[in-house]
This record gives sequence, structure tokens and C-alpha cells, in this order.
Amino acid sequence: MKRSGPADTGCPVLRSLKHVGDTWTFLILRDALAGATRFDEFQKNLDIAPNILSGRLKALEEAGLMERRRYSEHPPRDEYSLTESGRGFKPVLQAMLAWGNRHFAPEGESVVIVDRETGKQADPVMVDRISGRQLSDPVFAQAAGPAASERLRRRYPSMNQFPEHRETDR
Amino acid sequence: MKRSGPADTGCPVLRSLKHVGDTWTFLILRDALAGATRFDEFQKNLDIAPNILSGRLKALEEAGLMERRRYSEHPPRDEYSLTESGRGFKPVLQAMLAWGNRHFAPEGESVVIVDRETGKQADPVMVDRISGRQLSDPVFAQAAGPAASERLRRRYPSMNQFPEHRETDR
Repeated sequence: MKRSGPADTGCPVLRSLKHVGDTWTFLILRDALAGATRFDEFQKNLDIAPNILSGRLKALEEAGLMERRRYSEHPPRDEYSLTESGRGFKPVLQAMLAWGNRHFAPEGESVVIVDRETGKQADPVMVDRISGRQLSDPVFAQAAGPAASERLRRRYPSMNQFPEHRETDR
Repeated sequence: MKRSGPADTGCPVLRSLKHVGDTWTFLILRDALAGATRFDEFQKNLDIAPNILSGRLKALEEAGLMERRRYSEHPPRDEYSLTESGRGFKPVLQAMLAWGNRHFAPEGESVVIVDRETGKQADPVMVDRISGRQLSDPVFAQAAGPAASERLRRRYPSMNQFPEHRETDR
């Protein structure tokens, strides 16, 4: 059997990409997070061929990211809503938006995130919720978690080694 | 000319996806952000065919996300380092990692982000740097920015309308 993409190493980034590693899928989630629910809404927004849209929505449903509900029998019409894991995609999208605005918008920002109450534009950054520190800080490193495979353990330090490392080495 | 993907509407998410809307590219950036620089490192980590890797690295170089530097003439060997915009991809990757850990890791977390100084696992969230509020809060909405096209202005409210809206309507 031919393998068409990367083998599953257990890496959470790769696991995520199995579901959204496709431009159309990403954009369908973008529109769903902005409130779109109906097939024709997605189709109009994205200017996408119906068979492609239909395939991507089916895959999103199978992945548990969207739920389909029939809202009309005559004619048959479905609407699609995000599940909890689908809504959980929002930070990825916001990070992507911020990256695009910073680096690929020579003419200025086209879409921004705004605080509805104050009207102020948000500056999206990733932080550690516990310490409040920005995750761009080099103090943060990737480490092998409790469920890491052998392969991942060879690649990343164990998450338990850092404080010990500090105590013995400094 | 056949259009193979979505038309450029100026949306920053779409602009970003033009550069990283591919699983291999995403994983190359993941590994580069974890410190990989050499062709054979990427190849070994990813278990990727050399011609595919070579094509993806070339595209990343052309997109300005990576820079190539020859470090050996005999034999000819290049190393690849992230540019500023390439390093700017980090939050997207961290958001993807967090999403994968939360929703697609039934056996537990395989890769985590750790604060090297305290050894504590980070809980990655997107916040507005200015107010510190989490961007998952429904108070945050997408809005058309200063450089929005007609099409984006029809889709998103203007970023200036929120405070006025509140003053006149409440």
C-alpha cells in the first residue's frame, strides 16, 4: 500500500494536519467560525465547486469537526455546525490571520480581530495561560509528553528533565 | 488558465495558506522551528522523498520563509534557516499543537510545550496582547481592516463600526 503522506508518529501537529491539511478545509472552517452554516453560503463565499465542497464537508463530518443537520426535507437541505473540536480550531485560524497580516499584506491589513465592546483592534499572541508569558519566548521548548512514542522520545527532551537539569547543572 | 485553488481575496488566512497549505510544508516548518537546518535532518525526521523535500524547500525559499546557505562546496551541501517571517509561523504551529493535544490524542499528549526554567507544562492560548483577554471570548469578532477589498467589506463589518454602533443603539 502506497503511503501518500507522512506516517503517524503521534505528533499532535501532524494529527491536526490529517484533518485540516488542505486549503479548502481550512477555509471552510474559517467561514464556519465566522458563522456560515449552509451549503450555499460556503459555496458562495468560497467560489468552490459543489462536488469539492461536498467532499470536504463530508470529511469534516467524519473527522467529528462538523455536524450535519437536515433543516428542510422538500427540498432536502442540510446545515453544518461546528462541534466542540471544530470550534477549538479558532486559535489556529487566529494565529494564521495574525501571521498573514504581519508578513503577507504589503498593502495593509484586510481582516482584523476587533474587541466589539471597545472597538479596539486586538493584537493576537500565543501565551502560556498559567504564567501569562508569550510563547515566542525562547524559554519555552517542545518536549516529549507522557504518551510520546519511542521515536518522539528520541527527538524531544523529556518534559521532566528541565528542572532537574537546572538543579544539577547550575 | 485553470484556477487550482481559491482566488486571492486579500484574506490574510488565505494569503498564509498560499505558502503553507500543504502538510509537508507545515512539517518542514515544524522541524525548522525545532532546530533542524540540514537537508538530511529534514529527510530523516520526516521520512520524505528527496525530490519532494527539495521542492518544498525551494518553495519556502521563494516565499521568503527560509534562506539557503551553502556550507560545503565539496560535496555541495546547503543548510536552511528560517527568516523572520518563517520564525513568525511559530504561533500557528503552537496553536496547532495545542489543538491536536486537546482533540486528537486519545492516548494522551505526545508533544508538549514546557517552560525550561520551571519545567512546567505551558497551556497555550491566544490572547489579545493589549487587553490580555483570551481571543476565544465572543467579544472578539473579525472585521474588515483598512486594506479590505470590496468583497471583504461586504462580508465583514468595518472595524470602526463597533463603538459607534454601541453608542447609538444602546
